[in-house]
Amino acid sequence: MTVTTPFPARLPVLDDTGRAALFTEARTANTFTGEPVTDEQLRSIWELAQWPPTAANTQPLRVTFVRSEQGRERLLPLLAEGNRAKTASAPVTALLAADLDFHEHSPVTFPVKPGMREGLAAQGRDGRADMARFNASLQIGYLLLAARAHGLATGPMAGFDADAVTAEFFPGGQHRVLLVVNLGHPGDDAWHPRLPRLAAEDVLSFA
Amino acid sequence: MTVTTPFPARLPVLDDTGRAALFTEARTANTFTGEPVTDEQLRSIWELAQWPPTAANTQPLRVTFVRSEQGRERLLPLLAEGNRAKTASAPVTALLAADLDFHEHSPVTFPVKPGMREGLAAQGRDGRADMARFNASLQIGYLLLAARAHGLATGPMAGFDADAVTAEFFPGGQHRVLLVVNLGHPGDDAWHPRLPRLAAEDVLSFA
Repeated sequence: MTVTTPFPARLPVLDDTGRAALFTEARTANTFTGEPVTDEQLRSIWELAQWPPTAANTQPLRVTFVRSEQGRERLLPLLAEGNRAKTASAPVTALLAADLDFHEHSPVTFPVKPGMREGLAAQGRDGRADMARFNASLQIGYLLLAARAHGLATGPMAGFDADAVTAEFFPGGQHRVLLVVNLGHPGDDAWHPRLPRLAAEDVLSFA
Repeated sequence: MTVTTPFPARLPVLDDTGRAALFTEARTANTFTGEPVTDEQLRSIWELAQWPPTAANTQPLRVTFVRSEQGRERLLPLLAEGNRAKTASAPVTALLAADLDFHEHSPVTFPVKPGMREGLAAQGRDGRADMARFNASLQIGYLLLAARAHGLATGPMAGFDADAVTAEFFPGGQHRVLLVVNLGHPGDDAWHPRLPRLAAEDVLSFA
């Protein structure tokens, strides 16, 4: 079940413009212009974000894009007060959730391991929750960078009532909202001063 | 506390070469050549991976790069059997852990919220675990793409004894290993056939 490398012996590297767009210069936006984000852009972001890996190809992330006036009215009261004005100004807000029943797709997404669906089914939602959240969180990292790859600014927010957002937009107990992210084009004074990163010595070690 | 945009009004987009390197063509490697990965490359990967956002700039990810013969001998028996041969062939294996005491850095990393360290200290390690794991998992997503940005293949593995790897390499209860990732240059027959991704309709919805 192996195939010949699809790549040249030497893998491509990301150039400085790409590094700036995704990592070194990109910033979290706190205001947005009125310029819309199109359906085509949102689908193209997902086209890109779907590819990096998840454990056993589980892909548990689910995304609801809130754009309508009605959707926004349901969401805003469930956010921390400090996040409401900027969210009201964003053309689209993505609700990023883990699907605790991700295993239902396993016969298609991971055919190399027959019985995986049944094994995970026996664990129940509580037993699958860590795997769902961990892999959905990896996918959120991919999605944030995929949005930046499309020339959009992201505004991830942890300040919201997770139980209430889950109940309002993903009722039934199958999902758990992990993060709320504004997407759009940066408006006036969109950026706070950059906060310091840890020293490499506080993060990296060698064994 | 806002600053004028450091960007042009139109943010940069990632070109097709960059999209291929990080998202669309990059693949999980299952074999590696003997070509080493240098300290400089590992530090440069972290230089890039450190920038995308975490909640309240908490940055809880900690990384141990296993490269020595001794380090490898400690690690291999703690992996699932199917992961041992490829890990033995990789020039470096990264252990990616969440630091449950990330809040100790908050006075420096998030000075805009005085008292954050004390508030999180009162929650204890169990109370901080979800925040540590979620944000460290986002950072793992960033790190995998940052390694690809350096022309390296990644081989993330969920098949290992997390308690044992944590006890062996991060003793003391402050950390929790979340993922083990081989890094290097792809060897012969490095790639399995690509597994299917979910249909967009199974992931995306609009509100």
